[in-house]
Amino acid sequence: MQIIVDAMGGDHAPQEVIKGSVQAVNDFNIDIILVGKQAIIEKELAAYEYPRERIHIQHADEVITNDEAPTKAIKTKKNSSMVLGLKILKDKKGDAFVSAGNTGALLTGSLLRVGRIKGIDRPALTPILPTDKGCAILVDAGANTNCRPINFLQFGVMGSAYMKKVIGIPAPKVGLVNIGSEEGKGTDLIKDSFVLLKEAPLNFVGNIEAREIPEGSVDVIVCDGFVGNVILKLMEGMGMTFYRNIKSLFTKNLLTYLSALFISSGLKAFKKKMDYTEYGGAPLLGIDGVVVKAHGSSNAKAFYYAIVQAKKFVETGVIEEIREHICRRGEDEIHECR
Amino acid sequence: MQIIVDAMGGDHAPQEVIKGSVQAVNDFNIDIILVGKQAIIEKELAAYEYPRERIHIQHADEVITNDEAPTKAIKTKKNSSMVLGLKILKDKKGDAFVSAGNTGALLTGSLLRVGRIKGIDRPALTPILPTDKGCAILVDAGANTNCRPINFLQFGVMGSAYMKKVIGIPAPKVGLVNIGSEEGKGTDLIKDSFVLLKEAPLNFVGNIEAREIPEGSVDVIVCDGFVGNVILKLMEGMGMTFYRNIKSLFTKNLLTYLSALFISSGLKAFKKKMDYTEYGGAPLLGIDGVVVKAHGSSNAKAFYYAIVQAKKFVETGVIEEIREHICRRGEDEIHECR
Repeated sequence: MQIIVDAMGGDHAPQEVIKGSVQAVNDFNIDIILVGKQAIIEKELAAYEYPRERIHIQHADEVITNDEAPTKAIKTKKNSSMVLGLKILKDKKGDAFVSAGNTGALLTGSLLRVGRIKGIDRPALTPILPTDKGCAILVDAGANTNCRPINFLQFGVMGSAYMKKVIGIPAPKVGLVNIGSEEGKGTDLIKDSFVLLKEAPLNFVGNIEAREIPEGSVDVIVCDGFVGNVILKLMEGMGMTFYRNIKSLFTKNLLTYLSALFISSGLKAFKKKMDYTEYGGAPLLGIDGVVVKAHGSSNAKAFYYAIVQAKKFVETGVIEEIREHICRRGEDEIHECR
Repeated sequence: MQIIVDAMGGDHAPQEVIKGSVQAVNDFNIDIILVGKQAIIEKELAAYEYPRERIHIQHADEVITNDEAPTKAIKTKKNSSMVLGLKILKDKKGDAFVSAGNTGALLTGSLLRVGRIKGIDRPALTPILPTDKGCAILVDAGANTNCRPINFLQFGVMGSAYMKKVIGIPAPKVGLVNIGSEEGKGTDLIKDSFVLLKEAPLNFVGNIEAREIPEGSVDVIVCDGFVGNVILKLMEGMGMTFYRNIKSLFTKNLLTYLSALFISSGLKAFKKKMDYTEYGGAPLLGIDGVVVKAHGSSNAKAFYYAIVQAKKFVETGVIEEIREHICRRGEDEIHECR
């Protein structure tokens, strides 16, 4: 398997991206194509031990930065590491593309250069959230701020396919984020989406309130990209605030410091359980190719897990699962089919 | 001051509501009118010591339950504790109304029976959220799932008035919840609302991402009721998951149990800091009368704080502040004026 990596994307690129990539080729039977400025990549790689034949470099002159407007960046920077990486994926010279770069540009680029799975109206950005019971996929976390019921239905289909194939949950529970759990609550969009999801061959458990998300009551969290983005970022913010406060409790005096020693292993395990980087990045579900968005602030470990995730995404055939599901629903129901 | 209390509303009514009310009259120079089934209230009151002349009973035959449709309940149950309580407020025979009952019914009832402040388009449900730096008001948390820019502007105005008057922040920082912090991000509704808020005589700090909410980067959080409801409930859910996990860490073995003893005071202080019940309930801002919604699961302590909050709400003249602000903006800008 050949994983294409945007060597120049992310806050800690290229150093941490390359470090994570090296670790991945050392641990798994995969090849990596690092796309970016050749001289810089070669210099970074020189510091590491790894099977030389497993890492390839594709030179790219330009870099798309985080503050660039997505569509303009994709259209004008044809020699950027992101656009070239997506081209390699489209040409099937690689099996997956991983980038920690500009999220909007990656979404736009994937749509324009790789395209959608036939029948999918809107691809989604779908991070895996840690929950008390394991993890859940959030569909959508920011790709689509204006949605129609068909999008919500397809979010449910795509999220289910991912959780079934990659995480191994036979019948993933799908929940629709709403302001109350009873049927008939919420906006017209939500009510219409409820009906579509209820009729679909999914394990749809109905409306869920945001309160239930951290405890892990469902495996697939369906909402529009605005709400999903709020959920994702609020969970991050709550986590940071908790840890900062707990840490300050332990550094008060000698006794509290000693207490920290006794519970430190448990605390670390809890932190690890709630650490989203362990789950890799966010797949772009609905794109007709495996694209994974690593967190912009990814360190080597987080980027490594994003590569591991892309590998599983390819191996388990999520895209084929989505395609089949969309086809089974028939032409009259969800757009055209292959 | 006379506070009207819905003795029958909430999961633990009337017991906890009455207990909290008794404590309030014992601690403050206020009178309370308990509205509900007289015989039940009298029986509950008999157990307590308090100045008898300070608690009055207004008999109400009916009770609006949580599963009733709001508008129908308000229109048909004219002798319910909620409708009668709102009538007493409207007739100015009481200064504030506090209820832990059906939220939708309280909103509808307040609108129909008490009415809006002149010039306010949509009243909002505005809970006070604990943050790392103190607290912030969330406008709106569920009253309005479909909003226009004028609503967002008025949410900013109403939230600022509350934080200035009740919490004592001279120039409350107002933030608009968005999926990015830069101007020009988000839906058309958000972009248009941004412009209105920027031009208003408010301390508007621009877009905020949900990540910033727990750290307390702003004092007034402006969003539509759907997003606000998700924020409120996700914060509750994250808090519960976090405490459950921390608690289980300490009960592992004798050493971890001893550790808990050393940091228990700090942990309690943190829990208290993050406990929303300490801030009382959620004011209904925009109603032309002081109405406070106590949490449905309020115990006596939470209900007591909701009464304390209603008292401050009256004393500090929040409604007058909102009215003045709306008037200053002129007839051409925000609807009609007095």
